[in-house]
Amino acid sequence: MVQSGTTRAGSRHDAENTRAAILDAAMREFAMEGIAGARTESIARSAGVNKALLYYYFRDKEALFGAVMDRAFAELAGIIARVVDSDLPPREKFLRYVEAHFDFVASSPMRPRLFHREMMRSGPNGSPLLKQLVEQHLRPTFSKLAQLIARGIDSGDFRPVDPAHFIPSVVGTIVFYFSTPIPAMISGRDTFAADNVAQRRAAVIDFVSAALFRDHAGANGATDVAGKHPSGKKSKGARK
Amino acid sequence: MVQSGTTRAGSRHDAENTRAAILDAAMREFAMEGIAGARTESIARSAGVNKALLYYYFRDKEALFGAVMDRAFAELAGIIARVVDSDLPPREKFLRYVEAHFDFVASSPMRPRLFHREMMRSGPNGSPLLKQLVEQHLRPTFSKLAQLIARGIDSGDFRPVDPAHFIPSVVGTIVFYFSTPIPAMISGRDTFAADNVAQRRAAVIDFVSAALFRDHAGANGATDVAGKHPSGKKSKGARK
Repeated sequence: MVQSGTTRAGSRHDAENTRAAILDAAMREFAMEGIAGARTESIARSAGVNKALLYYYFRDKEALFGAVMDRAFAELAGIIARVVDSDLPPREKFLRYVEAHFDFVASSPMRPRLFHREMMRSGPNGSPLLKQLVEQHLRPTFSKLAQLIARGIDSGDFRPVDPAHFIPSVVGTIVFYFSTPIPAMISGRDTFAADNVAQRRAAVIDFVSAALFRDHAGANGATDVAGKHPSGKKSKGARK
Repeated sequence: MVQSGTTRAGSRHDAENTRAAILDAAMREFAMEGIAGARTESIARSAGVNKALLYYYFRDKEALFGAVMDRAFAELAGIIARVVDSDLPPREKFLRYVEAHFDFVASSPMRPRLFHREMMRSGPNGSPLLKQLVEQHLRPTFSKLAQLIARGIDSGDFRPVDPAHFIPSVVGTIVFYFSTPIPAMISGRDTFAADNVAQRRAAVIDFVSAALFRDHAGANGATDVAGKHPSGKKSKGARK
């Protein structure tokens, strides 16, 4: 939202900070209380603003929820685009993508809950908000990742997989662990504790590397693979 | 629930059918309307029973929801146990497990929604109901799968992975695709249409096989792998 002239929030910089503070508070409230249960009064209080100011930035609770979701998906899309648009070779780039997506998800236990809330509300066919998020952020991100995979297959680095299925499999591997309390309830460990996050991160990288790379070494790092690719290119040796 | 003597539902067989009809109707209603939004009157009507009979079987709406969840997880645990307790070699057994779990999830678009509903309600630390489902069904299932993976690692069939992370990765790969409308919204295809389910099933099998098996051939079936395992056992050749 562009501010012109002086507002109650002061300079443009202050306005952006205020908006961000409201969105942060709203994310927590929506994640914990649901969309119907969230109270704008409580969000305004957490953000340290009065309710009138909240409504100055966001028309109503629904618009506020949309803005929270849009910010989360825009951030994820931006993070992924920076990796995928870079100059790295396919394997390196794919691993950096997985790490970036993982770190984004692991950094906030709130976001998966937000997303589930919208899914529950929208029904199995999506909602106008989900459609907008798909068009603006998720479809472009999917296309970039599908191109990366196609290039890696061409170069002989990746196994010949179908991006339309491979990408949701990778995303499922990344997000599922953080979107349910079940793994923590089975293991008795805190999913979001730093050492568990680090362990999980390494396990996800190993899992998806083995699923995609032609000559992945395995979790023990042994390079027990030789031979030629069907493309005729020599194996480049397992990365570790 | 064991019936003694004659009830309004008739014989034991009829009683079980009535109970099952109520649970089927309740599953749909809870999945679509949520736990708070579901109406026992509407469930009774869909099941073709009167409300008094519903309350004869299930104390209240909460007990009915618990019974729906318990039935779903008991069914899944039973299906998985039959595969894992069988006499198959590790690779075969693991593939049969993935297929069985996949088929269970793909057979009902309602169950993932039920599960998400309970997660949303329970908060990030679980609920008494989730704790009960974990103790009775999920932890025993996890243990069986962890043993299967340990045995496959010992035999040199599987890469050395940590079951505590590998199992949630596999489950995430199976369930994520069916628990959000996003893949369908990106691809424009109906997630639950038979040909898409078959394609997805093959992709999941390929993905998790490559992630676990030492000498997985890749989606094109090429056997471009040779060499010895660190265990000293010879590679047994890729399965296809």
